[in-house]
Amino acid sequence: MPGITILSGQAHPELAGEICRHLEVPLTPTTFRRFSNDCQYVQIGDNCRESDVFIIQPLSIPVQEHLMELLLMLDAARGASARRITAVLPYFAYARSDKKDAPRISIAARLVADLLDTSGANRVLTLALHSEQVHGFFPMPVDHLNAMNVLAGHFVQGELKDAIVVCPDFGYAKNASKFARILGLDVAAGNKRRISDSEVIIDTIVGDVRGKDCIVVDDEIANGGSMLELLDRLRDAGARRFRISCTHGVLVRDAVCRLAESEDVEEIVTTNTIPIGPEKMHPKLKVLSVAPLLGDAIHRIHFGLSVSSLFH
Amino acid sequence: MPGITILSGQAHPELAGEICRHLEVPLTPTTFRRFSNDCQYVQIGDNCRESDVFIIQPLSIPVQEHLMELLLMLDAARGASARRITAVLPYFAYARSDKKDAPRISIAARLVADLLDTSGANRVLTLALHSEQVHGFFPMPVDHLNAMNVLAGHFVQGELKDAIVVCPDFGYAKNASKFARILGLDVAAGNKRRISDSEVIIDTIVGDVRGKDCIVVDDEIANGGSMLELLDRLRDAGARRFRISCTHGVLVRDAVCRLAESEDVEEIVTTNTIPIGPEKMHPKLKVLSVAPLLGDAIHRIHFGLSVSSLFH
Amino acid sequence: MPGITILSGQAHPELAGEICRHLEVPLTPTTFRRFSNDCQYVQIGDNCRESDVFIIQPLSIPVQEHLMELLLMLDAARGASARRITAVLPYFAYARSDKKDAPRISIAARLVADLLDTSGANRVLTLALHSEQVHGFFPMPVDHLNAMNVLAGHFVQGELKDAIVVCPDFGYAKNASKFARILGLDVAAGNKRRISDSEVIIDTIVGDVRGKDCIVVDDEIANGGSMLELLDRLRDAGARRFRISCTHGVLVRDAVCRLAESEDVEEIVTTNTIPIGPEKMHPKLKVLSVAPLLGDAIHRIHFGLSVSSLFH
Amino acid sequence: MPGITILSGQAHPELAGEICRHLEVPLTPTTFRRFSNDCQYVQIGDNCRESDVFIIQPLSIPVQEHLMELLLMLDAARGASARRITAVLPYFAYARSDKKDAPRISIAARLVADLLDTSGANRVLTLALHSEQVHGFFPMPVDHLNAMNVLAGHFVQGELKDAIVVCPDFGYAKNASKFARILGLDVAAGNKRRISDSEVIIDTIVGDVRGKDCIVVDDEIANGGSMLELLDRLRDAGARRFRISCTHGVLVRDAVCRLAESEDVEEIVTTNTIPIGPEKMHPKLKVLSVAPLLGDAIHRIHFGLSVSSLFH
Amino acid sequence: MPGITILSGQAHPELAGEICRHLEVPLTPTTFRRFSNDCQYVQIGDNCRESDVFIIQPLSIPVQEHLMELLLMLDAARGASARRITAVLPYFAYARSDKKDAPRISIAARLVADLLDTSGANRVLTLALHSEQVHGFFPMPVDHLNAMNVLAGHFVQGELKDAIVVCPDFGYAKNASKFARILGLDVAAGNKRRISDSEVIIDTIVGDVRGKDCIVVDDEIANGGSMLELLDRLRDAGARRFRISCTHGVLVRDAVCRLAESEDVEEIVTTNTIPIGPEKMHPKLKVLSVAPLLGDAIHRIHFGLSVSSLFH
Amino acid sequence: MPGITILSGQAHPELAGEICRHLEVPLTPTTFRRFSNDCQYVQIGDNCRESDVFIIQPLSIPVQEHLMELLLMLDAARGASARRITAVLPYFAYARSDKKDAPRISIAARLVADLLDTSGANRVLTLALHSEQVHGFFPMPVDHLNAMNVLAGHFVQGELKDAIVVCPDFGYAKNASKFARILGLDVAAGNKRRISDSEVIIDTIVGDVRGKDCIVVDDEIANGGSMLELLDRLRDAGARRFRISCTHGVLVRDAVCRLAESEDVEEIVTTNTIPIGPEKMHPKLKVLSVAPLLGDAIHRIHFGLSVSSLFH
Repeated sequence: MPGITILSGQAHPELAGEICRHLEVPLTPTTFRRFSNDCQYVQIGDNCRESDVFIIQPLSIPVQEHLMELLLMLDAARGASARRITAVLPYFAYARSDKKDAPRISIAARLVADLLDTSGANRVLTLALHSEQVHGFFPMPVDHLNAMNVLAGHFVQGELKDAIVVCPDFGYAKNASKFARILGLDVAAGNKRRISDSEVIIDTIVGDVRGKDCIVVDDEIANGGSMLELLDRLRDAGARRFRISCTHGVLVRDAVCRLAESEDVEEIVTTNTIPIGPEKMHPKLKVLSVAPLLGDAIHRIHFGLSVSSLFH
Repeated sequence: MPGITILSGQAHPELAGEICRHLEVPLTPTTFRRFSNDCQYVQIGDNCRESDVFIIQPLSIPVQEHLMELLLMLDAARGASARRITAVLPYFAYARSDKKDAPRISIAARLVADLLDTSGANRVLTLALHSEQVHGFFPMPVDHLNAMNVLAGHFVQGELKDAIVVCPDFGYAKNASKFARILGLDVAAGNKRRISDSEVIIDTIVGDVRGKDCIVVDDEIANGGSMLELLDRLRDAGARRFRISCTHGVLVRDAVCRLAESEDVEEIVTTNTIPIGPEKMHPKLKVLSVAPLLGDAIHRIHFGLSVSSLFH
Repeated sequence: MPGITILSGQAHPELAGEICRHLEVPLTPTTFRRFSNDCQYVQIGDNCRESDVFIIQPLSIPVQEHLMELLLMLDAARGASARRITAVLPYFAYARSDKKDAPRISIAARLVADLLDTSGANRVLTLALHSEQVHGFFPMPVDHLNAMNVLAGHFVQGELKDAIVVCPDFGYAKNASKFARILGLDVAAGNKRRISDSEVIIDTIVGDVRGKDCIVVDDEIANGGSMLELLDRLRDAGARRFRISCTHGVLVRDAVCRLAESEDVEEIVTTNTIPIGPEKMHPKLKVLSVAPLLGDAIHRIHFGLSVSSLFH
Repeated sequence: MPGITILSGQAHPELAGEICRHLEVPLTPTTFRRFSNDCQYVQIGDNCRESDVFIIQPLSIPVQEHLMELLLMLDAARGASARRITAVLPYFAYARSDKKDAPRISIAARLVADLLDTSGANRVLTLALHSEQVHGFFPMPVDHLNAMNVLAGHFVQGELKDAIVVCPDFGYAKNASKFARILGLDVAAGNKRRISDSEVIIDTIVGDVRGKDCIVVDDEIANGGSMLELLDRLRDAGARRFRISCTHGVLVRDAVCRLAESEDVEEIVTTNTIPIGPEKMHPKLKVLSVAPLLGDAIHRIHFGLSVSSLFH
Repeated sequence: MPGITILSGQAHPELAGEICRHLEVPLTPTTFRRFSNDCQYVQIGDNCRESDVFIIQPLSIPVQEHLMELLLMLDAARGASARRITAVLPYFAYARSDKKDAPRISIAARLVADLLDTSGANRVLTLALHSEQVHGFFPMPVDHLNAMNVLAGHFVQGELKDAIVVCPDFGYAKNASKFARILGLDVAAGNKRRISDSEVIIDTIVGDVRGKDCIVVDDEIANGGSMLELLDRLRDAGARRFRISCTHGVLVRDAVCRLAESEDVEEIVTTNTIPIGPEKMHPKLKVLSVAPLLGDAIHRIHFGLSVSSLFH
Repeated sequence: MPGITILSGQAHPELAGEICRHLEVPLTPTTFRRFSNDCQYVQIGDNCRESDVFIIQPLSIPVQEHLMELLLMLDAARGASARRITAVLPYFAYARSDKKDAPRISIAARLVADLLDTSGANRVLTLALHSEQVHGFFPMPVDHLNAMNVLAGHFVQGELKDAIVVCPDFGYAKNASKFARILGLDVAAGNKRRISDSEVIIDTIVGDVRGKDCIVVDDEIANGGSMLELLDRLRDAGARRFRISCTHGVLVRDAVCRLAESEDVEEIVTTNTIPIGPEKMHPKLKVLSVAPLLGDAIHRIHFGLSVSSLFH
């Protein structure tokens, strides 16, 4: 595939490698250094003049380091006369900061979208933004994929009798509905109030889950607090068993263990938009790959083929 | 109040007048003309050099005419050397186009936000955007008010025993929850699928409404189709009586009559963010004024006082 | 012609169709909808990634609707990753608002030029701007055609003995001179004062028209008021017969009839930069097509050939 | 007048001094140097933080030197934290390059307007732009004065019986008409064709000048070629005597002498928007000052008073 | 001091507190949080509408965290309608990345300057940039202070007989010369070649240091590698004793100890542009405060007084 | 080489011609005119739509004329729909104004970089900028060449025994070191203080030059004042003979003669980045051509090949 350059930051080289193998394109190496004063330094390892450059970097932890690294790579590619630069953000962490729900705060998702623009990103390819409106924060064209087909492809192979799709929050209910329709299931939702970042209260479950096998879905699971609270409420409401699914497995600290330890939790299904270290691996954890999806999108962007047709 | 200029487009001079009376500031006149070739022409009627200019214009029907008129007024105020220009948009109609839910469409809310910027708006003051994320579409500072206190102030004066707050759609459920908490009520939601702009299907009601008096809330009611569909589903589910509430009463054609004709609909409560012509008036229709709210916000913006404190 | 996409707004699909036939390129379909709240919605009907997109939309009546439609189409094409987007404006209605001849007004032609830029137009192709300086309002490259050869091609087939070219206004005298030189004729001009948009006074005729056959030229005729006033003055000055010519036939209401009803008016010649509805058709009205001219320009822009060579 | 800073480039310190005396504000000194490699260097001589800075610089010959000097002064004032910077351009030489009348040229007036913006000009104050449309080239607010009242104030003191206003070109005919109306006179125009910058042909005189005293008006006179050609044509048409008037007296080389040498030329009236060196002085040359006009405009801009009221 | 708001990020609250005490202005509190997914969240603690906001944040370690925090604070202040926002960067760490000395790298200092602009900084106040040219990277006005007088004020109190100023590198020699002239001393310089970030070779000492007491100066000391190498070369060249001075005491890991352990090193003098933790304190380490200097500059910026006069 | 257009301003047509011959591409002609009012006019002589345009123009004397000419050519090429426009600046005169070493001045190098951007330059190709940081002033990609290999290629053919590289100033010492390493020589430096543009004092020579043959290097020589001062100091320090080398031979007035008249000056070596008129030719003056270097860079930019590989 001539005229294409695939670069990876340090956030998720495994995903980048998998995408490159899918595309049968070699990964162009990049040198990363850090000065004594903690400033980052990146050097793209090969000529990319007039090339169609894709830089793969989910904003995984440590987010600030990975973001700055991405901005430096974008700027370096621009200065190196790339023809077009696409920031590939399988996980855009700041998407959750998408509204001004308190005075004198930043709508950080918009800010970061503008920082990407300032740094030289001509396009963005991203996946499962926290809300669909975040698409509109970007000043450049965005291809916004979702992993619904990837996740649904897993669940259709399992048992769906007596199953129901449940989401912890009205905010995600529209996506849950879509997911439920793919699987031919009903949907229920928690009525969540956020007390703080790590503390939520779920007042009630809206919808009937009595005796049901719940496929509990959310866009991302970080510390798992909301999810544990939701499982308790669902048990109160008579739900029987649980399969947990999320696109972005942030899964900080012992989130996997805390979720997996209850016997009624059958599996936790996520994707590899974020690297999941070996220390988080657990027999109940299933990680699906989005590399083919991202690879196909890159292929279509490069050749000017329709990307929306990927969703059908 | 020296150094302030209040202007009004032709969309809602009554609201502008009411705001001016609240502020005890005269409305600066504007001349509106239309050339034979249908191009608009606006001329601000008095010197506004170095003034703090507020231009009041909800994007009511005809939307395109009112939008262009606003853009011309912004540009005229800029060319006339205003110190600062605030676009006051009590109703930002294009806010509903806030995501790319089909390929090759415009996220028009973002586009219009940028058009306002290009035309000279230094700030925006708006009210009850369709989704909170739309705030982030604007490149300039935005004060985003809501009419919840105005509407809740009405309902607390009525009967709330056996009442429940219901919204037609998960997308609005978060706001409905907030509204319900102000009134100390539970919440239920329809699970809506949009077939087309005027056709929706509500599959199920999530939450128990049997024997309840429903306060049905939405941000805007245009042709009332969703609302009628919702009322039918609520009746199926055993709901008893209905009070309908929305911030933006677009209320096209005979929407008021169609909603009001059922005996179990007790009242339709809305605000005057959009002018509601005499032909739409109906004994069951109650229009609350947002002029004091907008006036207070303008006062606080002009004097550099906190606007967020208006929400408490 | 691979790599090209021709789109048409709803202003003038006939012209777009004619251009496509000239180019032997199919018109890519677009879906137009209107929400209940009057907001517009456009969806481009086929993939246009990496394509050279031309969007044909004269700003004909209703101007604001057609302008907003164009802006939405530009933004949709940009979001859909078009390689280059050219706004084709056979008639740029706002060009007449090209100066600040009163305090506190907008130079709307400049504003609209900037709105096109904000919405994603990379280039503009237009025809017979009201004044040549308007070219300089656009921040992007503009190809500015004129229909002089099209119109002159008609008149050279007629009688030119005893003919003189007359324009209603000094502002158009330079163009009239050029047109007269093509036809080998003299030129005269009215000395027009505009009282209001629809009322003008022509004080005097500068130049000798006694006994002459006048080819009266202007860039656009809207309600025909200026033209009728001019004809009267020309009759006062002894002119004999009249042929009327304009590039943009806005021709509102009964303008054609009012112009045509005098026996000494032999014909009214215009072009199809604006659609002329069947209700305006009249035996004395002759509509020439600019589709070959625009089609050739699009062809040359797409292939990087000189457009200025079209003028010779 | 606290909070104001008046600066002058090297183009016209006399005019700047006269404006300062009119305003009773001292001129802030500026140091001008030139490096050995011909690069310019400017240093503003006093603190101008948070000040309302006006930089007076007509683009007189040598134009490029004066333009670059202005750009450097603008940038220096911006870097020095001026609150607002107004470029005062009594003569905007590049205004004549206002259209694309040949392929592959620059519309230089637009370019220079953008250069002023890039360099830090927040506003422009200018006078008698070659065409009114050039106002629309500037991205920042412009106050566009004209010297008609200054010039008319001179002529009303002379003999106006049998007088007629004549302009060399249809392009200036609208302004000539306005000027004629102030004086209560008729207007005539030459039909000029430009062969090259210094060569023009005037085919005919449109209007009756037989036995008339012509007040010949134009916006600027450079080498006087057009004017001499026009005088000859007017003599052919029977005109009797001539008074010549222009706003901008560029008057290169021996233009004054060539114009003044004919006995039937009674006087040449211009203003001091451009410095007129002692070597150009001639008994028939009358130079009127625009300093009070510019000074009043600066005063009004600084205090936020209406500038348009200066025209009545 | 009404109308001013001083904010501090988490990089150096002590310095911010000292500046506030110097200015007799209270520090406005800010809330800092971190979401489970590592995204930052900042909330300004008090109304700052129409206020002149200064945000104090040196880019100390961890640089990326402190930079992102600053960008979020800038954006929050802009969204909160601050009248003017000044980023106060006592230490601009990325200034060292000021050139493209290898292919395909970012000139990160320019990039970060642009990021500050994108995030809402209207001005920058900084101190001792690595090279003076970095001033020109910023698109907004910059006040660039230096700590020479602060440092020189210390050394003039010590012994200067037989002293010489030495810098490790030609790149800093101009500043060293200025510093030497303040102290009335000669200057010498190392001829440094950088092998990697932590490894340098100093080939030779240019200048005679035999028997001299060296005041070794540099802008910043990070791991101290260059400095140790320089001391060895100076010892080889016969230098006697050393006093080490730098503006920015990055002083990572055991840099202080390694520098201080040689007996011939008498003292290490730095400033508090960066917080120096108690674990780095050493009897030979002397930390001078730049708070009065920064406070005076803030005072002068706020009141529109000359800042350059601070240097005399 | 299809799809490429090489243009030359009037600054150095000989260099442009030599580059074209090297590339085997014809120079596209440009017409240059000057209006009577001194405004410039340029017209590109052939279609350059969709072409990769390179405009060659060193900022040689008269700098302001050549700069404006370049800006007009850039704008004309943009308006003529060039695909990409590269400003080729073999000598960027304003690079010396790269810092704010006095209050209230412009960092003119940054300003000019922004003017190039405003005028349409998509890229810059330049050579031996006064300081490497100036690269970071440009908002667009820059290819920054140096003539070290060209100059070193000359000196390696001469005698290098007992030779030493000397620079007049610490500011250039890093480059001198690099140059010395290519030649395998030591380096010494003057400690220069600038009194004014044409007056400098060199206090001391740092480094041992006794009995040495000095290759004195600098980036540019204008009036030669610094160089003459340096030679005197070097003689004082016992240097024997001198070869003078600079990249940019500005060489104003009798600079060549003054430098060449001393017998101990063996030769003056420079390049043709600036035209050196026949009146400056001198037996001791050797002018090396950078045309092959610039030509190779243009070739590589056009074809997307690595330019950095030119340096090895």
